[in-house]
Amino acid sequence: MTIFYNGFHAPIGAHSSFTFGCKGKKGGLGLELWRPADQNVYIGLESKDGKCFEALPFFEPEEIPFEGMFGNPRDITCFKDKDISREYKLGTDKWKAGDIEFTVYSPVESIPDPESASDMDLKKILVPSVCVELVVDNSKCDRERIAFFGHDTSRDTDSMRIFDNMERPYQGIGIGNSTAIVTDSKNAFHAQQMSMKHILSAVHEENWTFALFLANTGSIVCKVPPKTKVEFRFAVCFFRPGMVTSGEATSYWYYRYFRDIESVARYTLENFEDIKARAVKSNSIIDDNKLNDAQKFQLCHAVRSYYGSTQLLDWDNRPFWVVNEGEYRMMNTLDLTIDHLFFEMSMNPWVVKNTLNIFASRYSYEDKLHLPGGTNSHPGGISFCHDMGSRNRISRPQYSTYEAYGLKGLFSHMTHEQLVNWTICATAYAIKNKDKAWEAEKLPLFRKCLKSLMNRDHPDDEKRTGIMKLDSSRTIDGSEITTYDSLDTSLGQARSNIYIVIKGWAAYSALEKIFSNYQEYREDAQMAEKQASRTADSVCTFMDTKEGYIHAIMGEDCNSQIIPAIEGLVFPHFMEMRELLDEKGKYGKMIQTLKTHFKTVFKKGVCIFPDGGWKLSSSAENSWLSKIYLNQFVARKILGFKNDDTGIKADQAHAGWLLKEENLYWAWSDQMFTGIAKESKYYPRGVTSFLWLNE
Amino acid sequence: MTIFYNGFHAPIGAHSSFTFGCKGKKGGLGLELWRPADQNVYIGLESKDGKCFEALPFFEPEEIPFEGMFGNPRDITCFKDKDISREYKLGTDKWKAGDIEFTVYSPVESIPDPESASDMDLKKILVPSVCVELVVDNSKCDRERIAFFGHDTSRDTDSMRIFDNMERPYQGIGIGNSTAIVTDSKNAFHAQQMSMKHILSAVHEENWTFALFLANTGSIVCKVPPKTKVEFRFAVCFFRPGMVTSGEATSYWYYRYFRDIESVARYTLENFEDIKARAVKSNSIIDDNKLNDAQKFQLCHAVRSYYGSTQLLDWDNRPFWVVNEGEYRMMNTLDLTIDHLFFEMSMNPWVVKNTLNIFASRYSYEDKLHLPGGTNSHPGGISFCHDMGSRNRISRPQYSTYEAYGLKGLFSHMTHEQLVNWTICATAYAIKNKDKAWEAEKLPLFRKCLKSLMNRDHPDDEKRTGIMKLDSSRTIDGSEITTYDSLDTSLGQARSNIYIVIKGWAAYSALEKIFSNYQEYREDAQMAEKQASRTADSVCTFMDTKEGYIHAIMGEDCNSQIIPAIEGLVFPHFMEMRELLDEKGKYGKMIQTLKTHFKTVFKKGVCIFPDGGWKLSSSAENSWLSKIYLNQFVARKILGFKNDDTGIKADQAHAGWLLKEENLYWAWSDQMFTGIAKESKYYPRGVTSFLWLNE
Repeated sequence: MTIFYNGFHAPIGAHSSFTFGCKGKKGGLGLELWRPADQNVYIGLESKDGKCFEALPFFEPEEIPFEGMFGNPRDITCFKDKDISREYKLGTDKWKAGDIEFTVYSPVESIPDPESASDMDLKKILVPSVCVELVVDNSKCDRERIAFFGHDTSRDTDSMRIFDNMERPYQGIGIGNSTAIVTDSKNAFHAQQMSMKHILSAVHEENWTFALFLANTGSIVCKVPPKTKVEFRFAVCFFRPGMVTSGEATSYWYYRYFRDIESVARYTLENFEDIKARAVKSNSIIDDNKLNDAQKFQLCHAVRSYYGSTQLLDWDNRPFWVVNEGEYRMMNTLDLTIDHLFFEMSMNPWVVKNTLNIFASRYSYEDKLHLPGGTNSHPGGISFCHDMGSRNRISRPQYSTYEAYGLKGLFSHMTHEQLVNWTICATAYAIKNKDKAWEAEKLPLFRKCLKSLMNRDHPDDEKRTGIMKLDSSRTIDGSEITTYDSLDTSLGQARSNIYIVIKGWAAYSALEKIFSNYQEYREDAQMAEKQASRTADSVCTFMDTKEGYIHAIMGEDCNSQIIPAIEGLVFPHFMEMRELLDEKGKYGKMIQTLKTHFKTVFKKGVCIFPDGGWKLSSSAENSWLSKIYLNQFVARKILGFKNDDTGIKADQAHAGWLLKEENLYWAWSDQMFTGIAKESKYYPRGVTSFLWLNE
Repeated sequence: MTIFYNGFHAPIGAHSSFTFGCKGKKGGLGLELWRPADQNVYIGLESKDGKCFEALPFFEPEEIPFEGMFGNPRDITCFKDKDISREYKLGTDKWKAGDIEFTVYSPVESIPDPESASDMDLKKILVPSVCVELVVDNSKCDRERIAFFGHDTSRDTDSMRIFDNMERPYQGIGIGNSTAIVTDSKNAFHAQQMSMKHILSAVHEENWTFALFLANTGSIVCKVPPKTKVEFRFAVCFFRPGMVTSGEATSYWYYRYFRDIESVARYTLENFEDIKARAVKSNSIIDDNKLNDAQKFQLCHAVRSYYGSTQLLDWDNRPFWVVNEGEYRMMNTLDLTIDHLFFEMSMNPWVVKNTLNIFASRYSYEDKLHLPGGTNSHPGGISFCHDMGSRNRISRPQYSTYEAYGLKGLFSHMTHEQLVNWTICATAYAIKNKDKAWEAEKLPLFRKCLKSLMNRDHPDDEKRTGIMKLDSSRTIDGSEITTYDSLDTSLGQARSNIYIVIKGWAAYSALEKIFSNYQEYREDAQMAEKQASRTADSVCTFMDTKEGYIHAIMGEDCNSQIIPAIEGLVFPHFMEMRELLDEKGKYGKMIQTLKTHFKTVFKKGVCIFPDGGWKLSSSAENSWLSKIYLNQFVARKILGFKNDDTGIKADQAHAGWLLKEENLYWAWSDQMFTGIAKESKYYPRGVTSFLWLNE
């Protein structure tokens, strides 16, 4: 397995990342990007004989303008692959090659709730930087050697610059006010030139200040005396001041504490040892668990990608938590929120509440409904938008970025699923966080949700079966889809979809649980219970007893076999309503049916790829890692299918997908077409794997 | 001659431009760019029969994702070239094609001095927008027709968006908070989609709100009722809030008046008629003059390019005027400042003072000097940096972006020339603007300049000849260059260069004039006069009487014949010291010598290209339009060479260069290699042509 994959090294809530690890011009310091920064990154050391420089392979040979203008250039070659090692953990990423050790520290920690925490505590977690340590072992060499850490940029960005506006001990390089690499180490010097070769070959160090439009390479140059081992430290910083969103004006929360990138650098270096220690401590979140190596790698990779997508904004003095949707950069996509739920409830329950509140107040809407081919004459109810905006543009109230009109497939509305998603997230938050005040405040809304869910089943109570049968007027004459938007009908169509049905059952059950605590909501509790039971009955009814599975689209012409039929079972488990999952309990027959279903479909050639990876639908090559992780948990922990096919063999196959040549650039990606990431790249959703820590 | 060239349509001081006119994906709304925005720009109208759309040719056919998803796409074709006309003037640019007229209004006006003017007056001039009018003549058609004005962007920018956060009558599209096209016209609607085809073919207009990462096209869609002629109006806006520079923090001056792009749009539309009238009035600056068409085109083209490069910043509550150096984006390059002098002294003398003051306080330095091959042991003196920074990065005090160390050619220091440039600009400002207070305040600095100039001639007064002989210690052991940096030695080397010598003579003469007004500076006046005389004598001495010209590098091995020997004569003329230019006056012999020089070199095959264009140096193919304009003025107005070769034939050749296929993209460019723009593209310096208005 290669070690040369891009990994995120991201501050929390700054929507930025020092992504690197993939060979070539494939990484660098990215601020609000949908992909890596595509910079050459230079990390290396002068050879012992001084004839050349050796570096990690994160750059590409390029035509150098005016080569040799400032001295006789010495070559920069790459360390041999076999001489390079990497230790990639949750909070640390350590590279060793030749006489250097290069480690990035990025703590994984809870964010205090901005509505109650002190500025000091928030500043500590939200500082938009990561720490880097470069140890150079020159103890066996009797020459001074030069080590370096730098990168380039393009002519289209703000200027590369040295931080000559800071006093010693600070030396730094960066792009405008957006990114910086700053050190406070002795014998470290900032330099800017037309290429790394120009920097390393300069006869006059005065020429390390060249700042022309061609001078797009910046580096810290470290001088290491003979017979010494020296440690240099760097703050890798990101910054965007003032207004960052359009539609509604917000700024980064960290902008309250840092008014310029120089102060970010200073704070980071002043707290370097503390940040480093916290990053090392983060590793134990994964290391202390009995996961296999393929799991550890994927979990660590996924959490890092998640952080790169996060953005804590200040919206009229209130926090606004945003998870950007990877390469698509949609903001708080609700069908991702529900998958981030397990991670966020563990790390930062307040962000779940924050997101739910904004969906409730700004991104909910009321619709009417139509039966297939009919008119929008049936009562609908409340639902929630797919997202809150895209690429730093906050969407208008009641409308998402994604959802379009008059469609039956991709880009159509997800009205039903988002209603289910909000309901589950909200009940889960209330139950898990024991937030009684919030729960009570939201009861009228929960009632609306129940009513809306029921209306989508059927306008006539007699005909209700727990299965969605009507589509939203938001689709005009179209039909709704699910989060599996770019998959085929088996998972793409919402109506009668077994995946949606089971999630709906979980929503009804959770509502029942909430309502049952309140006298005045007894009737609602009963209705919810009735709908849950109807759903369970229907699932059993639709079991194809001959084939041993439930067709993906129940009662329609779609015979696909899908794993995510079982997905929704995770929620009662997560909400400590585990009695509902008892094979001998109230819904025992449904649970047994789903077990049979899983047993039937989980076979090579059906829902297992030849390499052992999971194939979510028998009729599609497109499989989604985040959902696989989630369904693995359900299969193993809830349904009890603990074996090599649900475990180690699958894990190794999935890790293998992420490490395929085509995928290395994108760090963690979701949609895998026969193992190749073609959509949902550079993506936050893999934190579903956080569930594994509870197995 | 083609009409399809890119032209700037730029607000004043906002470093932005709606550049378009070149066929293809070659224009659009650019903020702080070194080149056009490379967007598809869509300006067009539905055909009478409704079968397709016809548009101006500012877009390229592209692969359209999900074509037909929202309706049956109709083709967008281009109007035929012969059916398109353009009227390109200083303040207006009018296109006609088929039934549409599309006009951009961008006033050319003086900026009130921010240190004394009212906010209201400043806001009026500095609003970062231009106005657009689209007239659709549907009077002969009995169908409603759709007209449109929009553009696309790329996935790498902030999101394209509709301005659904504004109330009617406003409708708008734009990129994040950076650019906008906003209308307040009736029957105009904003739309966003994956392509212009998607917008124009949408069955449900609800789909004009699609905002996914693929939805990178925005447009205003105008519905024109049958049998009507309708006028739509648009504010094309640019905006960058908060801190924009690094090194030192500054913001745009307009940010005082406009806190978001929406308010820019509102203000622009509220004042539309006024802005339009002022733009039309601007045209008279050129139209009222007896210039030939080739001159009018070049002057108008140049002034527009200049404005696109300008930036009025707020630096600790003081104005900071910046002219960015075209594609290089260096800030206030001093050797451009002196060429902008004629234009700026006419339009905004305060910007000259502003620039001079900042050079004096922050970007001056003291050096030592060396004779060729010698050491830096000779006293030097004050000089000024090449520039104040680059690409929004303000350089550290006393250092430029451009100047490097230990060099003898390109990227070396311009110490001597910048000293001359500052001296001339400062004396010109004082004299022309009759700013006696400022003049008095700067007298000690003028004295330092004189001393420094003399030291660069020779440490020993006896050996002074008015010719620069020593190079700055800033070059270490190298030598200085001139503004003609990428030309060959004939104009590139500073020492002994006849171009520098004559500019030096002008500087000495101007200093003499200033000093002579002050009793306590009598001695300085005498020294300045002595140096001017020595210079004039030397020029005559170095006349190669056999060949009839002065060698470019006097007394060294460079026999090039150069036109800019005469360049420096413009300054005594400009400063109303015209007696110095009298052939029978004090410097008559030098003037006669330079006349002879010009007569000799100004010949086809020497300093005239085969097409009649001016060739600044006999030994280089690289000729600079800004400098040609300036030297044309000197040859015609001062030396009296008024003929077709200095006038119409040359003007037509130069206009022809700008209209060559290879150059159309770059609007106005400076460095022409046999008529092809290879360096200094998209450049502000052509405002030297403003001198023509005084012939």
